[in-house]
Amino acid sequence: MQTLDRHVHCPFCTLPDSRIVASDALAMVIRDGYPVSPGHTLIIPRRHVASIVDVSADELRSLWSLLTEARHKLDKDLSPDGYNIGINDGVAAGQTVLHLHLHLIPRYAGDRADPRGGVRWVVPEKADYWSVRKSDPEA
Amino acid sequence: MQTLDRHVHCPFCTLPDSRIVASDALAMVIRDGYPVSPGHTLIIPRRHVASIVDVSADELRSLWSLLTEARHKLDKDLSPDGYNIGINDGVAAGQTVLHLHLHLIPRYAGDRADPRGGVRWVVPEKADYWSVRKSDPEA
Repeated sequence: MQTLDRHVHCPFCTLPDSRIVASDALAMVIRDGYPVSPGHTLIIPRRHVASIVDVSADELRSLWSLLTEARHKLDKDLSPDGYNIGINDGVAAGQTVLHLHLHLIPRYAGDRADPRGGVRWVVPEKADYWSVRKSDPEA
Repeated sequence: MQTLDRHVHCPFCTLPDSRIVASDALAMVIRDGYPVSPGHTLIIPRRHVASIVDVSADELRSLWSLLTEARHKLDKDLSPDGYNIGINDGVAAGQTVLHLHLHLIPRYAGDRADPRGGVRWVVPEKADYWSVRKSDPEA
């Protein structure tokens, strides 16, 4: 019963067809409702699972195949200069909708004065390693 | 020649064995040199490729399998409360070492006052959607 309730109140279990820009039997692609950049896209399994560790091998293949396809389409439509690909897995990692979704975030030269660090910015006070040590960076 | 030069100067092509905590024929696992959290880990293909779109199906399987294994080990060793998994793909996305690496960032309850947004923080001024609209969040 709890599982059913959760589904009913889950925004990704109740997506209107109009939001879905691509899909297959196991996963869907939508544009993020609050995009951080033009073309910000989410890839979502149809099944209500919270974590990437909960998906089957077939679901993982679908998610990756749809992500790759969405990226090629964004390349053609918006010509971004790069992408951040990321998952917030768990509330402590910033996940707010507890139905797995992969972020595909197109990036554009100059969209941020200094883009260095990228996904390191999940922990802002530790993201900037290049001021700490200017040689031998790893990011 | 240029490819060779690039390899020689690439920190991930010239990793000392002592840095490698796990590996298989196609990929390696190291701890990040400038961790944003305890256990911050990188999964790296052995082959010098810049982007996730450049890896073969076999390399992708290795990367994912090593990431999953590293995560299970971190679960056991450090008991984090969540993970950010992310790729900075391209200079515009914050990539500084142009040899592909997947970030596996353990997160701990309270490691940030408000962890919401997670990988959205790659574009800080757009990350906070919950102040913009309090209902129907998608993150």
